[in-house]
Amino acid sequence: MSGVDLQVHGFLGAAVKAHVRKKDRLDLALIYSTVPAVAAGVFTTSRVKAAPVVLDMERLHNGRAQAILVNSGIANACTGAEGMRLARATSRLAAEGLGIAEELVQVASTGVIGEQLRYHPFDVAMDELVGKLSPEGLAQVALAMMTTDTVAKTAVRTGVIGGKEVKLAGLAKGSGMIMPNMATMLGFVLTDAAVAGETLAIMLKRATDRSFNVITVDGDTSTNDTVLLFANGLAGNPVVDGSDTAAMARFQEVLDDLMKDLAMQIVRDGEGATKLVTVRVKGAPGDEEALLAARTIANSPLVKTAFFGEDANWGRIIAALGRSGIDFDATQVDIAFDDVVMVRNGLGQGGEAEARATEVLKRKEFAVNIDLKGGPGVGEVYTCDFSIDYVKINADYRS
Amino acid sequence: MSGVDLQVHGFLGAAVKAHVRKKDRLDLALIYSTVPAVAAGVFTTSRVKAAPVVLDMERLHNGRAQAILVNSGIANACTGAEGMRLARATSRLAAEGLGIAEELVQVASTGVIGEQLRYHPFDVAMDELVGKLSPEGLAQVALAMMTTDTVAKTAVRTGVIGGKEVKLAGLAKGSGMIMPNMATMLGFVLTDAAVAGETLAIMLKRATDRSFNVITVDGDTSTNDTVLLFANGLAGNPVVDGSDTAAMARFQEVLDDLMKDLAMQIVRDGEGATKLVTVRVKGAPGDEEALLAARTIANSPLVKTAFFGEDANWGRIIAALGRSGIDFDATQVDIAFDDVVMVRNGLGQGGEAEARATEVLKRKEFAVNIDLKGGPGVGEVYTCDFSIDYVKINADYRS
Repeated sequence: MSGVDLQVHGFLGAAVKAHVRKKDRLDLALIYSTVPAVAAGVFTTSRVKAAPVVLDMERLHNGRAQAILVNSGIANACTGAEGMRLARATSRLAAEGLGIAEELVQVASTGVIGEQLRYHPFDVAMDELVGKLSPEGLAQVALAMMTTDTVAKTAVRTGVIGGKEVKLAGLAKGSGMIMPNMATMLGFVLTDAAVAGETLAIMLKRATDRSFNVITVDGDTSTNDTVLLFANGLAGNPVVDGSDTAAMARFQEVLDDLMKDLAMQIVRDGEGATKLVTVRVKGAPGDEEALLAARTIANSPLVKTAFFGEDANWGRIIAALGRSGIDFDATQVDIAFDDVVMVRNGLGQGGEAEARATEVLKRKEFAVNIDLKGGPGVGEVYTCDFSIDYVKINADYRS
Repeated sequence: MSGVDLQVHGFLGAAVKAHVRKKDRLDLALIYSTVPAVAAGVFTTSRVKAAPVVLDMERLHNGRAQAILVNSGIANACTGAEGMRLARATSRLAAEGLGIAEELVQVASTGVIGEQLRYHPFDVAMDELVGKLSPEGLAQVALAMMTTDTVAKTAVRTGVIGGKEVKLAGLAKGSGMIMPNMATMLGFVLTDAAVAGETLAIMLKRATDRSFNVITVDGDTSTNDTVLLFANGLAGNPVVDGSDTAAMARFQEVLDDLMKDLAMQIVRDGEGATKLVTVRVKGAPGDEEALLAARTIANSPLVKTAFFGEDANWGRIIAALGRSGIDFDATQVDIAFDDVVMVRNGLGQGGEAEARATEVLKRKEFAVNIDLKGGPGVGEVYTCDFSIDYVKINADYRS
């Protein structure tokens, strides 16, 4: 636990051990806003969307929500009509417990794909869950969302809008199946700011592209990715909307910063990860090409195992660049580890540079800086190394 | 060593310990046809092509070759003008030793990217190398090409064309950085068949698409991928060309079979691999989509670690399908491990099916059969599992 103070006006949280799949762990949680909030969501781009994702997308059409019911253990993905029925039925339990309309309840699940939820654990646990709701309870929600995560991920930020202080609290989970366009990644951001619905959706999409969409652990995208942003307006600031671009910019900045913090926590906690690596590409024809190149490098198992081995193996980096599909001139490429230039104009800089680069690779966090010298495009992706523990964790995740 | 008899009329081979990078291993080899051969090549699609690839492509424009000089230890990739100079200079040494035109020498290198070859080891070793050439020596060539390979890869086939028996011998290396469109993968096919140049190139491309281009170990494509096919005509068959489609079909069949055999040997020897898995997709909108879906699954670290863990985790397979970008209906998908159907119409088939599938996963070789029921497209990719040893091998390849 990061120990940050997650309390935001009007938001309550709670978690219980409901035995969704395993015993004796927090696995069912509820977030509740005492007043209906303006809400926006960003969801997995996968063709296969889990039942809670389908339900949330449907309900968010009206841009309002008041609660999030989240479970770990079972993803409720690839569960057909029965899975949809259970997503609705469990949300109804929460709505009844809270005395709000069912349409105001968002649901999120993370865990094993293909197993059905059982209704009973939700039914039995709901009274206790609602009864435990408190401002301090949000910290428990972050714990209940964890699967292979080794630490809960939370962050808070404050800002001033129209003379009023607004606060944002973020909770996230995710450590594998993390990749551009998200992953088994849940992120909830709660704020007391007043923001117009359409504006909130635009800002959430932008912040996601700058945070959760530029991290990768293993190149896999999940069926359940969900980022929700609730703004309940209790800070009393003038409503942020498209007419006040200065206020929008201020809110965007704080939101970006919070979500990037959460995203970095996910990469640092990547399954088996021992290092956080920033892959930064500039000089590409355009930003899209720079991002594609950075992602190809950041997902290469050969590059990532070299990071784990603390081997400044730039040959694998240039090989990944070469197959990325983008246009560049190999005889122009510079590659540096932090500030140590290993490759200049496509040529290795030899023993001394290598010795210094090897020192950089020993750091827990470092950057690979690539200059293609072929245009104005820039892009940045955050990744981790690929360790023996990654394989161990994933060879027996279900057992 | 597979112990197959690689001898083909007119082809000689030899290998020596030249100390290209490390001592006391066969690391420099020569293949020689006693008469100039019709020759074709298929090379890496990477934007970053190693010096020997650039040189070979240039020289193959005339469709003839007589020798292949191949070294392991250093890839001669990302080595700039000096690397090109050394590729030419070492090929000249071979040409002089053999008394043939320099343009008839193809070169191939595999090993570490970014280090320069030294001329001296080639210069010192060439006399011994040429002096050792013999029909039996081809087996030594297969050994000298190895890097992280644990076994030499060879295969032979025979066929009858125009009443004459023709023979094909194949040598290959590769165990990591293996992926669609090849990898640090060298493949040489030598035949005494007489084949027209243009026909040979067409047939080689087709056979490559059916073999080396549908295997993957880790999704990485290399700077050095090279497949060469030499046909020296000494079998005395009527020249196979476009005018005799029946002869073409016969030769293609034998060539496909030989190259698929070599490709399977590469996957079985994938770095750290314990299993050979065929990922077979049907019912896609088209073949291209089927292949893309199969490749996405075959390259997913989560799927491959589940194979290693002998876990019939079809959720990860359907998640990989979902992010592959192809169009399909998740509620129509069937997934079987060999003949055990685990998923029907997008739904898991429960405990008994799972128990039987787990038995399949324990096999050294099995297939994942996927039916999308959405069209006529089919595709097949061969892959291996992702083990702890893969990480160990690649975390320390250069040391």
